[in-house]
Amino acid sequence: MARRLANSPIQEFALIRSLAGRYARHTAGLVRGIGDDAAVIETSAQAWWHLTTDLLAEGIHFDLKLVTPESVGYRAAMANFSDIAAMGAVPRYLLISLAIPSTVNRSHIYELYHGLMKACRLYDVALIGGDTSASKAGLFLSITLVGTTSGRRALFRHGAKVGDHIYVSGTLGDSLAGLKLLMNSTTSQPSRKRKIEFSRSHRQFLVRRHSHPTARVSEGRWLNDRRLASSAIDLSDGLSGDLRHLCEESRVGAEVELDKLPISPACRAYARTIGVSPIQLALTGGEDYELLFTASPRNCETIERQARTQGYRMTRIGTIQPERFGIQMTSDGRTQPMPVTSYEHFR
Amino acid sequence: MARRLANSPIQEFALIRSLAGRYARHTAGLVRGIGDDAAVIETSAQAWWHLTTDLLAEGIHFDLKLVTPESVGYRAAMANFSDIAAMGAVPRYLLISLAIPSTVNRSHIYELYHGLMKACRLYDVALIGGDTSASKAGLFLSITLVGTTSGRRALFRHGAKVGDHIYVSGTLGDSLAGLKLLMNSTTSQPSRKRKIEFSRSHRQFLVRRHSHPTARVSEGRWLNDRRLASSAIDLSDGLSGDLRHLCEESRVGAEVELDKLPISPACRAYARTIGVSPIQLALTGGEDYELLFTASPRNCETIERQARTQGYRMTRIGTIQPERFGIQMTSDGRTQPMPVTSYEHFR
Repeated sequence: MARRLANSPIQEFALIRSLAGRYARHTAGLVRGIGDDAAVIETSAQAWWHLTTDLLAEGIHFDLKLVTPESVGYRAAMANFSDIAAMGAVPRYLLISLAIPSTVNRSHIYELYHGLMKACRLYDVALIGGDTSASKAGLFLSITLVGTTSGRRALFRHGAKVGDHIYVSGTLGDSLAGLKLLMNSTTSQPSRKRKIEFSRSHRQFLVRRHSHPTARVSEGRWLNDRRLASSAIDLSDGLSGDLRHLCEESRVGAEVELDKLPISPACRAYARTIGVSPIQLALTGGEDYELLFTASPRNCETIERQARTQGYRMTRIGTIQPERFGIQMTSDGRTQPMPVTSYEHFR
Repeated sequence: MARRLANSPIQEFALIRSLAGRYARHTAGLVRGIGDDAAVIETSAQAWWHLTTDLLAEGIHFDLKLVTPESVGYRAAMANFSDIAAMGAVPRYLLISLAIPSTVNRSHIYELYHGLMKACRLYDVALIGGDTSASKAGLFLSITLVGTTSGRRALFRHGAKVGDHIYVSGTLGDSLAGLKLLMNSTTSQPSRKRKIEFSRSHRQFLVRRHSHPTARVSEGRWLNDRRLASSAIDLSDGLSGDLRHLCEESRVGAEVELDKLPISPACRAYARTIGVSPIQLALTGGEDYELLFTASPRNCETIERQARTQGYRMTRIGTIQPERFGIQMTSDGRTQPMPVTSYEHFR
């Protein structure tokens, strides 16, 4: 349930958040409603269900001139798996609704389903329903995903405590770099074409990180089952935006050490080529679908040891601070507030 | 999970149905996947969960020149409650996603939520999550609703048996008549304006049946809890279309006695005014959100007696026949095949 704000006055979304907050209320079985990566419901004495939904709009979240319908389907599924991963749950059942304009043909829909189901098979998720409609303009996808935990346990956004360490999985900024590469290779404006000189394998890696991201389901489950994390969120809006969400829900501040951000060699090489800082890509790039989580200092040794054993890449990037500290970033001994950014897909 | 086919080549939807069928598979806990009003999952030894989703597109399912945003929100909720009612379940938890174009302003969204939550309060349904996005063109709503049954029981489309009686709740055709009244009162083409002479209360009744329909939740629950029905579906596409869905899933035919169709005095008066048969409105009009169900002859006396006691209007309109009989309708001793129609909203 990431919020995508591109192309619309941000007040609209603040409004909806306030409306949703006004109408949310306690109800039997509801463990957690609006405000986390998924809503949580107690379905039995032994189990919680996690529900998340994402709406993807053509021209806002994807551009069929840049990515294949197969990738649209794959990414749509993965974005939802990632929300469930951030709860420490296992994705299980998926519903998909499509509004299809006359410009989208039969083979596009086949490809989109192919991508969606490829992602589902990887994570053993079952397609259980959906809806289809015509659309006057633009392709719209809406996915709802149910995840489960066998215990009454989840990773919430609101559990971070002052003194906790902040971790991220994987590497940051790759998806944005991949998207920029795709945009660069298709733009018809010569002035926007930049000469990109770096290896073919770097390019393939970054484009793939954008078109076929990986939701960190087993990592989330491990953190939840072993009770290693105090809070978690998935990185869909970018580190800067999503850390802010986590801090707001936990009512804490944060200090991020920029030099520690995990950045892939390919992303570094790309940043060099286009003359921007890789840190910038890592902070603002969305859709990496990595996990951002916090852990008590007493768990750090266990996390790092077990992560090595399991082959998970987990990087400590900062610490949770009191709320009044705000969200700051340090580099070379200098500390400054982290800019408020929100990821705007292919703009 | 009704299918709305307006404005799009019908093959597109047959395609998706085939794709969905191809990818559907048995999975742990899944009682019923694609093909019914909702998917059904066993959540514990004592309970089933029912999940349904509906996508509503501006210009396809609603026209903001004809109906208020409040009504759009109300009807969107009710359409989903109706799917859950047709399973014999109780609607519980709702997620809503909105894609909002720049033409839709803040007060529209307030009104839409107001209508949605009015419907939710009536049925004690909790809003637990959602997503928001910008839209390049057109307002899109996607709702996912969870319903529950405390027993491992549901009303499915596939249970109708030859010899069963066919029932509908309420009256048919009112929503279509109400929509036609709205279209008539706003059209700017004088040639399409018809002089409508009937009482103000008839008009109010029909417009309200369109703008604020009622999902038959307590009726569905009663049929399921008492094991009175052999199959059920909700009337979203119209009697002709939805009876066909039920017969296909049950692999049976049906004979409908047209003279028995329950038609409100207001709908009869409206049909007279515009010079069409009220039967025509009843057969083809969608979005009545009544229940269509079948019952063994041995249950009919109980159904009719209990319905009277409870104040439910239930009308026997025909019988289930062998599959080779097809779907036929009789009137004045003449029998003919029921035409294949699909409801096209405001066209």
